[in-house]
Amino acid sequence: MSSRNVRLVLEYDGTAYCGWQTQPNGPTVQETLEKAIQEVVGDPVTVHGSGRTDSGVHALGQVASFETNSRIPCGKLCQAINAHLPEDIAVLRAQDESADFHARFSVKSKVYRYVILNRPCRTALERHRCFFVRGQLDLTRMRDAAAHFAGKHDFVAFCTETEENATRTVKRVEVTRLDEIIAIEIEADGFLYNMVRRIAGTLVEVGRGKLSEDDVTKLIESGKGVGGPTAPPHALYLVEVKY
Amino acid sequence: MSSRNVRLVLEYDGTAYCGWQTQPNGPTVQETLEKAIQEVVGDPVTVHGSGRTDSGVHALGQVASFETNSRIPCGKLCQAINAHLPEDIAVLRAQDESADFHARFSVKSKVYRYVILNRPCRTALERHRCFFVRGQLDLTRMRDAAAHFAGKHDFVAFCTETEENATRTVKRVEVTRLDEIIAIEIEADGFLYNMVRRIAGTLVEVGRGKLSEDDVTKLIESGKGVGGPTAPPHALYLVEVKY
Repeated sequence: MSSRNVRLVLEYDGTAYCGWQTQPNGPTVQETLEKAIQEVVGDPVTVHGSGRTDSGVHALGQVASFETNSRIPCGKLCQAINAHLPEDIAVLRAQDESADFHARFSVKSKVYRYVILNRPCRTALERHRCFFVRGQLDLTRMRDAAAHFAGKHDFVAFCTETEENATRTVKRVEVTRLDEIIAIEIEADGFLYNMVRRIAGTLVEVGRGKLSEDDVTKLIESGKGVGGPTAPPHALYLVEVKY
Repeated sequence: MSSRNVRLVLEYDGTAYCGWQTQPNGPTVQETLEKAIQEVVGDPVTVHGSGRTDSGVHALGQVASFETNSRIPCGKLCQAINAHLPEDIAVLRAQDESADFHARFSVKSKVYRYVILNRPCRTALERHRCFFVRGQLDLTRMRDAAAHFAGKHDFVAFCTETEENATRTVKRVEVTRLDEIIAIEIEADGFLYNMVRRIAGTLVEVGRGKLSEDDVTKLIESGKGVGGPTAPPHALYLVEVKY
């Protein structure tokens, strides 16, 4: 019996998890998903994610793949896995892929969104979903600075782990405002550890007037130095993975 | 020193509370708010809400008023009370009112919103914020039936407690769809216990094809019988109180 290669699209609330990747410090999305799939297909599986999401970060469209000998059709597989998952993780879609598809190595680009609530008072209902900034942010300044991240750069000033190669290609950075919500959306071929949160933290400082567009250009072009603070994880969403 | 009458607009996540009104079974929003205000103004206060919200129900714009001898200006009062409140309750605004303003007796109308997620698979991120309905709902049927609730009726079929007078005037009922979200918004001069959740539950049954427009008309006109099931509280929001 030849094995299948199944792609899953996942939504999760990262609040209770030590990120995506299995590790000894606490529960992760990957191991929780592997257990649920195993209960459905009857054999141990290894799930490959498109990449790590950090502790507390959410996903609207994380992608994962796994091989299995199970013959359960995709629609039923999706429902059955959901029945075994906790309520803070949901499989949105399951589909069969060719053998050469790999959730991590086949990635073309990923889209992340950072969500800021910018108003005078804090939020009760959305407190686990956005980053509250009290003082009014200057959207034009943020947009002007954000434009400089686009392109191929050494993002060493915007990560918090030493990486051998910190060069990434950012396809687009969009800063939009809808009422009290400011969203920063970034698409790139890859992301360094904490990169989106460092970029978001930097752009908030620009919006506050504490950093200038020129400061940001220097940080990007020099390939050294330290960007703005790391914005908190609970406002960050992995929106989409493109193949 | 003459006392002031202060109006507060509040947002809260109802998940952890036994509703608005102080009672012996568990923590309520009212008592939590009274404690926080007392810590700020130094004297015990009695807070009057616009009305009860039930256990688990949220508010985007609940209104409450209280009298105090404190001279703290409204802006500072707002920030100070927020500093003493838990993170699932937030004061959005505070303003001085004339002595004859009363958060409950001065109400002209209230607006509630019921939020349904209508898609094939459940949600992880919004699981505490909306009512998940898997099968596709027929929006036209829901709208046609909803129109009959408008006007002055005996809503005895849509409450779960015996009320002496169940006559209320519904100003509008709007059913709107945005992608996978269906929102039912109802404005009325007053609401019976569980009334919005019974109306929402009834309209979901209409959308599923299990109740007809005619069934709904009969329930409203007869002033007796039993409407659809009571939809769950975690998808209900007190949006606005009008004076």
